[in-house]
Amino acid sequence: MSNSAETSYKLLDGKKLADEIKSEIAAEVKELTAGGRRQPHLAAILVGNDGGSLTYVGHKVKACEQVGFKSTLLHFTDTSITEEFLLNEVKKLNEDSEVDGFIVQLPLPKHMDADKVIMSIDPDKDVDGFHPVNVGKTTLGLSSFVSATPLGITKILERYNIETSGKHCVVIGRSNIVGRPISILMSNNARVGNATVTVCHSKTKNLKEITLQADIIIAALGKPEFLTGDMVKEGVVIVDVGTSRVDDATAKAGWRLKGDVKFAEVSLKASAITPVPGGVGPMTVVSLLLNTLKAYKA
Amino acid sequence: MSNSAETSYKLLDGKKLADEIKSEIAAEVKELTAGGRRQPHLAAILVGNDGGSLTYVGHKVKACEQVGFKSTLLHFTDTSITEEFLLNEVKKLNEDSEVDGFIVQLPLPKHMDADKVIMSIDPDKDVDGFHPVNVGKTTLGLSSFVSATPLGITKILERYNIETSGKHCVVIGRSNIVGRPISILMSNNARVGNATVTVCHSKTKNLKEITLQADIIIAALGKPEFLTGDMVKEGVVIVDVGTSRVDDATAKAGWRLKGDVKFAEVSLKASAITPVPGGVGPMTVVSLLLNTLKAYKA
Repeated sequence: MSNSAETSYKLLDGKKLADEIKSEIAAEVKELTAGGRRQPHLAAILVGNDGGSLTYVGHKVKACEQVGFKSTLLHFTDTSITEEFLLNEVKKLNEDSEVDGFIVQLPLPKHMDADKVIMSIDPDKDVDGFHPVNVGKTTLGLSSFVSATPLGITKILERYNIETSGKHCVVIGRSNIVGRPISILMSNNARVGNATVTVCHSKTKNLKEITLQADIIIAALGKPEFLTGDMVKEGVVIVDVGTSRVDDATAKAGWRLKGDVKFAEVSLKASAITPVPGGVGPMTVVSLLLNTLKAYKA
Repeated sequence: MSNSAETSYKLLDGKKLADEIKSEIAAEVKELTAGGRRQPHLAAILVGNDGGSLTYVGHKVKACEQVGFKSTLLHFTDTSITEEFLLNEVKKLNEDSEVDGFIVQLPLPKHMDADKVIMSIDPDKDVDGFHPVNVGKTTLGLSSFVSATPLGITKILERYNIETSGKHCVVIGRSNIVGRPISILMSNNARVGNATVTVCHSKTKNLKEITLQADIIIAALGKPEFLTGDMVKEGVVIVDVGTSRVDDATAKAGWRLKGDVKFAEVSLKASAITPVPGGVGPMTVVSLLLNTLKAYKA
């Protein structure tokens, strides 16, 4: 998509940006390993055969290859493995000095306590940024591993030179993996930050009244095409985190990926907007690579 | 102060509430120790002779006595003690099974890294709630030690039956000890929570436009009488966290404590409001007691 006479928005092209950053990481890895140093190494634990999880982990492994990282996938297809067994696998990765960072792909089987498993990860290897220590450091404005989606959003805003300081940013959604952390980051004292941030959620009344005031809207509620043209003001910057599969007989797969934003309408008023797909999505895997590189250097 | 024909606001009397909760804690401690169990035990580390710090720690020790807690004050008057020495004192308290919780009174001398010292506290004994693990758990909506001022604010709102769900709460200030955590708590899915929360700070433009929309305002910026009557709407609930000493020749001490809210004006429009002094202040010490009791029980 490119701007035409009718559309004046800037497309925040996450796919293109992700490719750029991957090239930069690849160049850096080449330089780092040229002297004989080992490759950065990301490991992933996957339990079971959930289709979505398999796809996500596959993307991560592939991205590692693209930038010259080593990757290890511990795939336990047997969902009846015990929590104790899994905790021991985490312990081994914690202690493995050749593993810089690792993730435990969620969801886990229901007989496991996901919080407990996440808490058992060494925070210094928690490149998903889900451990409370990393969440806490992010909240406090300290150096930390920021989780993939919020980190990816800040990178998009940074690289596309979107001014955030003093802007009114409305975040729709308060999930632990997107809405909450991005609301904190946007409000912290940082280059991408210093915004006046309002967090909206399922209990919010008069949502439209609030979104109409926003200079920047980050939609992360998971309802396809929820944000419509009448809900935004002229010149708004839109970050669409939604990725819902919506049935569509005309699509090859029988479904299409839909964002939380009605792009056709909202893009007419926006000054900048991320598409779905090709916006925030591709940046999340890049965030994981950036965190792994950070762990490797530390 | 009580309501008269002219004033229709409800005074959120933190002093009275603090006394009530202390009585409840004292009764519970009496019951818990009746069977021969040891008292809850709060320890405090204080370095140097800062007047404010001495006063605060003094209040905490006194409060412990009032409710039947044991308290220990480690007061190092020599500000030249090393960080290493202090870290070792923290370690001893971490390992002391007779100490349920402890605090390191801030500020520390400038040659010490306060973040490092806080990070060395066992999160399970961090009754000030400053450790990143506790901040992270609070952010994630998990059980945690919430720091004193935000916890005190939630207790005031809870005990005075202030409805927060679906309300627009504006927090002025984004400090790590008040603004940030209370903004998260007010937005989390909890009895005192589920508000639509806007965080304002020094970079916020058109602040008045935002405060005029607020159903609840939590003022925590530290500027005496900053929030004036023209900045709030009728029926607003006001929580005033400010405690600035303002010169006043007519006061015995030569100064008076002033909140961030111009009480005389704002109270005319408010449906409920905390005074200063006697509002949030007394509740902070009670929060510390509640956290210590929680640590004792766990």
